[in-house]
Amino acid sequence: MTAKKYEKIEATVKPKKKTSAHKKTTKAKKSVESITLPIDKKTTKAIKKKKAPSLKIAFLGGLNEVGKNMTLYEYDGDMFIVDCGLSFPDQDMLGVDLVIPDFTYIEQNKDKIKGIVITHGHEDHIGGLPYLLKLANVPVYATVLTIGLIQAKLREHGLANIADLNVINPGDKVFFGDFEVECIHVNHSIPGAVALAIRCGAGTVVQTGDFKIDSTPIDGEMIDLARFAEIGEEGVLCLLQDSTNAERPGFTESERKVGESFETLFHRAENRRIIVATFASNIHRVQQIMDIAKKTGRKVALSGRSLENVVAISEELGCLKIPEGLLVSIDMINKYPADKMVIITTGSQGEPLSALARMAFSEHRKVEICSNDCVIISATPIPGNEKTVGKVINELMKLGAEVIYEKMYEVHVSGHACQEELKIMMGIIKPKFFIPVHGEQKHLNKHASLALSVGIPPENIVIADNGYSVEVSRDGIKAAQNIPAGRVFVDGYGVGDVGNVVMRDRKRLSQDGLIVISVAVDSVTGYLMSGPDVISRGFVYEKESEELIEAAKEAAMAVFDEINSSERRDYSAVKSKLRDSVSRLMYEKTKRSPMILPVIMEV
Amino acid sequence: MTAKKYEKIEATVKPKKKTSAHKKTTKAKKSVESITLPIDKKTTKAIKKKKAPSLKIAFLGGLNEVGKNMTLYEYDGDMFIVDCGLSFPDQDMLGVDLVIPDFTYIEQNKDKIKGIVITHGHEDHIGGLPYLLKLANVPVYATVLTIGLIQAKLREHGLANIADLNVINPGDKVFFGDFEVECIHVNHSIPGAVALAIRCGAGTVVQTGDFKIDSTPIDGEMIDLARFAEIGEEGVLCLLQDSTNAERPGFTESERKVGESFETLFHRAENRRIIVATFASNIHRVQQIMDIAKKTGRKVALSGRSLENVVAISEELGCLKIPEGLLVSIDMINKYPADKMVIITTGSQGEPLSALARMAFSEHRKVEICSNDCVIISATPIPGNEKTVGKVINELMKLGAEVIYEKMYEVHVSGHACQEELKIMMGIIKPKFFIPVHGEQKHLNKHASLALSVGIPPENIVIADNGYSVEVSRDGIKAAQNIPAGRVFVDGYGVGDVGNVVMRDRKRLSQDGLIVISVAVDSVTGYLMSGPDVISRGFVYEKESEELIEAAKEAAMAVFDEINSSERRDYSAVKSKLRDSVSRLMYEKTKRSPMILPVIMEV
Repeated sequence: MTAKKYEKIEATVKPKKKTSAHKKTTKAKKSVESITLPIDKKTTKAIKKKKAPSLKIAFLGGLNEVGKNMTLYEYDGDMFIVDCGLSFPDQDMLGVDLVIPDFTYIEQNKDKIKGIVITHGHEDHIGGLPYLLKLANVPVYATVLTIGLIQAKLREHGLANIADLNVINPGDKVFFGDFEVECIHVNHSIPGAVALAIRCGAGTVVQTGDFKIDSTPIDGEMIDLARFAEIGEEGVLCLLQDSTNAERPGFTESERKVGESFETLFHRAENRRIIVATFASNIHRVQQIMDIAKKTGRKVALSGRSLENVVAISEELGCLKIPEGLLVSIDMINKYPADKMVIITTGSQGEPLSALARMAFSEHRKVEICSNDCVIISATPIPGNEKTVGKVINELMKLGAEVIYEKMYEVHVSGHACQEELKIMMGIIKPKFFIPVHGEQKHLNKHASLALSVGIPPENIVIADNGYSVEVSRDGIKAAQNIPAGRVFVDGYGVGDVGNVVMRDRKRLSQDGLIVISVAVDSVTGYLMSGPDVISRGFVYEKESEELIEAAKEAAMAVFDEINSSERRDYSAVKSKLRDSVSRLMYEKTKRSPMILPVIMEV
Repeated sequence: MTAKKYEKIEATVKPKKKTSAHKKTTKAKKSVESITLPIDKKTTKAIKKKKAPSLKIAFLGGLNEVGKNMTLYEYDGDMFIVDCGLSFPDQDMLGVDLVIPDFTYIEQNKDKIKGIVITHGHEDHIGGLPYLLKLANVPVYATVLTIGLIQAKLREHGLANIADLNVINPGDKVFFGDFEVECIHVNHSIPGAVALAIRCGAGTVVQTGDFKIDSTPIDGEMIDLARFAEIGEEGVLCLLQDSTNAERPGFTESERKVGESFETLFHRAENRRIIVATFASNIHRVQQIMDIAKKTGRKVALSGRSLENVVAISEELGCLKIPEGLLVSIDMINKYPADKMVIITTGSQGEPLSALARMAFSEHRKVEICSNDCVIISATPIPGNEKTVGKVINELMKLGAEVIYEKMYEVHVSGHACQEELKIMMGIIKPKFFIPVHGEQKHLNKHASLALSVGIPPENIVIADNGYSVEVSRDGIKAAQNIPAGRVFVDGYGVGDVGNVVMRDRKRLSQDGLIVISVAVDSVTGYLMSGPDVISRGFVYEKESEELIEAAKEAAMAVFDEINSSERRDYSAVKSKLRDSVSRLMYEKTKRSPMILPVIMEV
């Protein structure tokens, strides 16, 4: 009656001294390389060093978009990466499963890259990692839950045993050549999120990662503002800060607020069953739901593969405390009265195949929604998901359930800092230069204007883009679009093989379908031996459009009647004529433009 | 230098007595019909009449959806329609241009239908009309601007001279057989919106249409609450009320509020050019922008065909007062300094082909966005449009423009009543029965709970659906799903020819593309004479996937090698084998499922 146990996490936990050791190794390697340098190059390098080289921050993702965050730091020949996320396809990326950064620049600089630090375990920060590690198996550093989630992901890609995974804790420092990277605890909607203080000869850069200021977080630890203040006092060259909520005034509410709302709603639900949909990775939220379930005498069942996985990993790693005997299998839910049951489920974004959507459309094998259900959607629709979330709510209501959603009750708070928090961080860190990251242009712009409002001069603020590298030193900051960057589509096993041509064809096929016109011709004379035959798909319903299909055949036949014997063997010209003629006719008759595919078989 | 003049509106304005005359005509016709009835039917009818027949309200659209509003009233053999709207396709309705109601029930009852009343000129209330009138050319009644907009629409469909269009004014009554329909002025985001009080032997029904309560509207006329109160005092059997904003607490702000924001923003823009995007039909908003432009010494140019049309029609009909010399052609904008110019444009929903989107993506032939532009998006994204609107904002910002959007400044107010207004109307009208209309399930549910909260008993509230007819009389209300209703896709010239099969194919093609496998076979022996040839589209980039295409060919060839001579001539079996074999192989190699189209040419 308890949830099934999962395979033990095998993350390699390296103590602090180990990372220092790692530092020495790379340092040593580097000096060997220096010795092998031809003299003239070495001289140049020496001169450059005297000038104190600039720090180069290259953006491979996360700017002018929400998702696939990836930043590369380079100083004096050493490089390391911060985060390697994915993004989910837009509606116009037909058939694409997910989108990852273009790793060309990484491949070009493979030998210089000393490692990667991951700020937290969300997909937009870890999702590109399996694809990156296949190209460049660099050591990975992250806090314990993040490593746990990465390992589960790598296992799916058959990379778990190959990857060099290293657990770090807030306060730990990692060394990559001349870089020293310190992790600082922050609050976010997943445990174990850290900001980074990155030190090198050029100065200190703070990259916040995703964060909020929560003075009453669920795991008891407020963001380490004291450490940010110390670093600020030491002097910070540049701040890279999370822009997600830069458009929102005020403060983000504490995660604890959601718990209070749940308490009220759980009591109000009385003898009804409660179903809560939330993000699988929001372990603090899951913790609160479990605690209140326990308090109100309810059992908890989980539905949704990702939720089951994350819960198992989090419990294993001590990030989630599941009260004894609380969890029951989803198979057992009907053995308990409705008022003794809470189901936690995925699908808060209305994802069509998620557990909640399956419940709503009566396709869930274990959970049947009825008028005795109270469904709480503990999330806000991510822009673009409003309609799918709305559909799920409508369907749940049609089945008679009460649905608590959006702003009706405070059942969700953001994991990102709002304007006042962003300004507080700027005030504590007091950076000389400022680069807003993680967001679309409108978020970056708004964030830049916040920086202006706290007194950072406009010439010290850079709004960059993917493909930009920003050079920063005490003397100044400059940005240029000079590195390869972009989005790479993952579709099935294919990484990057779906490009503009394939996408354009999918788009066209999706709008008006296609017509295949096939003929067999004599290989010597080019004369028609069979056909033209016409098949269509996604254009009109063939059975009810015989006339139209017949007209297409006649148009194709007319093409063959008109061409003279010298043209017959020029198949590409014949195809082009078939395409034009049939396309024109179909447009006249239907005002649609199906793709026309002529097939000529030589016999 | 003034905007070009448009063809004069030729709406037939029928005075009140004419509608009375119309009433007499239909009445007369009806009695003739009655006489021809066989005696037994007539007797039944007489008996029914004694019982006081129920009023039947049939829903053909607008329930469990936002859009294509259409309601049919039937009493004692007489029928009339309220509204005939369209809805815009969801993302999953690939290639569909627009969606209209299923008119089967109208066709079945063509002879009983005495006319159609349109509450206002928005697409979700008039857009289906051309398609309806082609099937049943019933007389149309609406206020002057609505008729003007309908006429422009019918002209595009070549129906302007055929349709029987009748202008009515608030206070007018239209008679359809035993029905008396009174129009009552309401506030909304387009001039000339009316609610309807529908009287028949069963009692009075009030259908609000889209409305809000605006005590300081732009055209000077507040919603006629006094008339609603009188009707309420007389006794109302049933209320059908607009649910669009039923989820929103409080009151909707007055349209005048937007004008105040514009004044502030126009002053703040100083020497910059101003571009305002709004809904073409929001004539009150356009009026305010023009008035403030005049006041601040700016000229106004229009961009966007629908805006130009609506402005011309509105001015013609006296619904818009354009100050003398204010309008300049979009071709002339560069002759004026930036601080003397306002461009009003369409595209506030981020529509990809709209004027604003073309400006944002630097594809507008007349307007080039620069850092001296202040763009005001005077609209809120309709659910589902958040991402496209966001994209347009991002691109405008990348070009350096300041963009004022969403809730940053009060540059938009809704045209629909919020919860307090909805409750006020219920309180004034005091209906016995209540049916929430215009909205998805979540809106209807919330609206029903508002009705409960003002004391309407639960058994007197009906949440219906498209395809339901509700029978209502003083004795009670009952609903049943018993009329044909649904959505009909319009794609090019095709109305209803894109059904499930075509849509399923488009979906599949959009995800993974297709592979055509073509062979020529001997018509007698079935032996392969040419091929197999393989073409793919939307699957992989052929030029870089030769190996995969070659593998598909080999798999197809293997099918022919394996089949024995008796099977060769069973082409459908051969095709099925080709499909299975190639499909399996492609999935193994790519984890994609392209559509496989085998083509067999007999020679």
